[in-house]
Amino acid sequence: MFKARIKADVLREVITVVGTLVEEVKLNISSDGLSLRAVDPAHVAMVELVLKAGAFEELKATACEIGVDIDKFREMLKLARAGSVLRLSHDEDKNKLVVTIDNLTRRMSLVDTAGMSDPKVPNVNLPAKVRVKTEELNQGIRASESISDHIALIATADMFELSAEGETDSVSLKLPKDLLEALECKDTVKSLFSLDYFSNMVKSVGNAPSVTLNLGTDYPVRIEFDLAGGEGYVKYLLAPRIEND
Amino acid sequence: MFKARIKADVLREVITVVGTLVEEVKLNISSDGLSLRAVDPAHVAMVELVLKAGAFEELKATACEIGVDIDKFREMLKLARAGSVLRLSHDEDKNKLVVTIDNLTRRMSLVDTAGMSDPKVPNVNLPAKVRVKTEELNQGIRASESISDHIALIATADMFELSAEGETDSVSLKLPKDLLEALECKDTVKSLFSLDYFSNMVKSVGNAPSVTLNLGTDYPVRIEFDLAGGEGYVKYLLAPRIEND
Amino acid sequence: MFKARIKADVLREVITVVGTLVEEVKLNISSDGLSLRAVDPAHVAMVELVLKAGAFEELKATACEIGVDIDKFREMLKLARAGSVLRLSHDEDKNKLVVTIDNLTRRMSLVDTAGMSDPKVPNVNLPAKVRVKTEELNQGIRASESISDHIALIATADMFELSAEGETDSVSLKLPKDLLEALECKDTVKSLFSLDYFSNMVKSVGNAPSVTLNLGTDYPVRIEFDLAGGEGYVKYLLAPRIEND
Repeated sequence: MFKARIKADVLREVITVVGTLVEEVKLNISSDGLSLRAVDPAHVAMVELVLKAGAFEELKATACEIGVDIDKFREMLKLARAGSVLRLSHDEDKNKLVVTIDNLTRRMSLVDTAGMSDPKVPNVNLPAKVRVKTEELNQGIRASESISDHIALIATADMFELSAEGETDSVSLKLPKDLLEALECKDTVKSLFSLDYFSNMVKSVGNAPSVTLNLGTDYPVRIEFDLAGGEGYVKYLLAPRIEND
Repeated sequence: MFKARIKADVLREVITVVGTLVEEVKLNISSDGLSLRAVDPAHVAMVELVLKAGAFEELKATACEIGVDIDKFREMLKLARAGSVLRLSHDEDKNKLVVTIDNLTRRMSLVDTAGMSDPKVPNVNLPAKVRVKTEELNQGIRASESISDHIALIATADMFELSAEGETDSVSLKLPKDLLEALECKDTVKSLFSLDYFSNMVKSVGNAPSVTLNLGTDYPVRIEFDLAGGEGYVKYLLAPRIEND
Repeated sequence: MFKARIKADVLREVITVVGTLVEEVKLNISSDGLSLRAVDPAHVAMVELVLKAGAFEELKATACEIGVDIDKFREMLKLARAGSVLRLSHDEDKNKLVVTIDNLTRRMSLVDTAGMSDPKVPNVNLPAKVRVKTEELNQGIRASESISDHIALIATADMFELSAEGETDSVSLKLPKDLLEALECKDTVKSLFSLDYFSNMVKSVGNAPSVTLNLGTDYPVRIEFDLAGGEGYVKYLLAPRIEND
């Protein structure tokens, strides 16, 4: 059983995050809220997302799994007016998800979850932690896009740097400790990432004013931020590109 | 003889409606105002439009017919500033329409009206009548666009429904009587229409807050709305698609 | 030596003007400011631009020449927030231009200026002078774009006219003396120009509310306007098209 009411803006945050990596996803639903895990088709990145019961206007559910097509939600969310609340319910007889906005109802066929496993989150130990304004990260990313297709994330004891090296030009965003919301780093760490993946992840942040980056050297980055004003969270994990010197 | 001044916003409403079905049109002009009838090239839809003398800032005309190219008006209207008034006059010697905005004048060649007949409006008896907010219709149409290329319009004694059926998903906008501005319907009626045509017609409505739909079963729909704040009107007639069961 | 701080909005005016004609340009820099001259690849138009020291927030320079790629500046300017100030400095050891916005730094490779000569400004005597609102010119240009690919600029003792003749339609913007900011013209002058070039030049005007046109008969037009609130200026020269009667 699944019946809920949720603000369009909250659902839009979820769909934007998931749509960054996959087009179909299995939602794990219970009376505690919604959670999901997904790995992108190239196995370069994964996402873990939790939305607590408090992020819903109303939630009545027994534990169940629902496979959904992200695009169908995007289409419905385009129709939502500012401040709209969506009603969701699972029609178990016909195995459809019934989504209602105002007087408009869409009955969606569901995706078979039989072949969709919950990916395991690898246990990585990332020694450095940086909390940085989303807006700053976005500026650094946009500046890098004309320079290279990968970027380096670097943390030292007293600053965080995002840098891109091209054939003739280079770009660097350097944020000293006093411009960061948090910096925990003993030894300098540096890893290289696909700009495309990193950019899409940071663009999916939505309203969260800052994100936490957990970093190592030639190690994945874990990108964490809040959803739904703190009633949920996202954890991305992005594999590094190993530089050949 | 034809000489007039008209608000750009009013002329834009006319051009938007006519451009939905045809690229060239014959305007019937007299001291009473302007009227036109046009059928789309596929003969699926027709439009009847009347603009009363009161919709003009000034109108001096003897009865005449003028064939115009819709695109040329679109180009001129793009140049109009908010609140602009256009001056129109017919240069009979050179058979040009002279259109002036501020200090800018375009002399337009006219389209030969010899081959353009006034289509006859078929006499159809449509038993149901619904008056619905334009905004609601637009939301229903946009929701249907990802589902199907045709939609059903249904009226019963106590509600109006717009519905689209796809292979896996379906969409339905249901408006009970108290959300409608008017509903006159004894027996349930239902007809199916091309979503493309219906969508373009409703998108052309402009500022009118509501439209009237006249419906039958497997019959055309007549879509009526006001122009120029009531100083004119539009009547579209759209042929049904007959469902093969 | 070159080290400067300049408002993003001022640099954007310069880049927009230069980018109308060329993709690479040689900047002549001194403690007095910045100047440049460029001819478009087809040799139809040239631009002369001067930015006085007062247009900079700070300027420290010994006379030098720097060859830059316009697109790289466009990319940086997209990252500037409202009111941003850019820092520019020449790293002579590595021959890079270092451009900084907030905490973001781009190190740009420079273009070799060896093959870039300073074009000579031809000495043309243009008998008529018109000062016209940029907004009026833009409206006339947009109206002409659907009519023809060239326009005539005409001045008489009591008006200025921009006109375009197509096969079936014509457009004319006529501004009598009292709608012009200045008009100095004894005998009627008329020249024909490429609409494309003229349009791009006028679109590059930016914030200057009016431009000065210097005209003759079958002679180039010189288009002059202010930059940086009067702390600089632009002079375009555009060759005429000679009509074959």
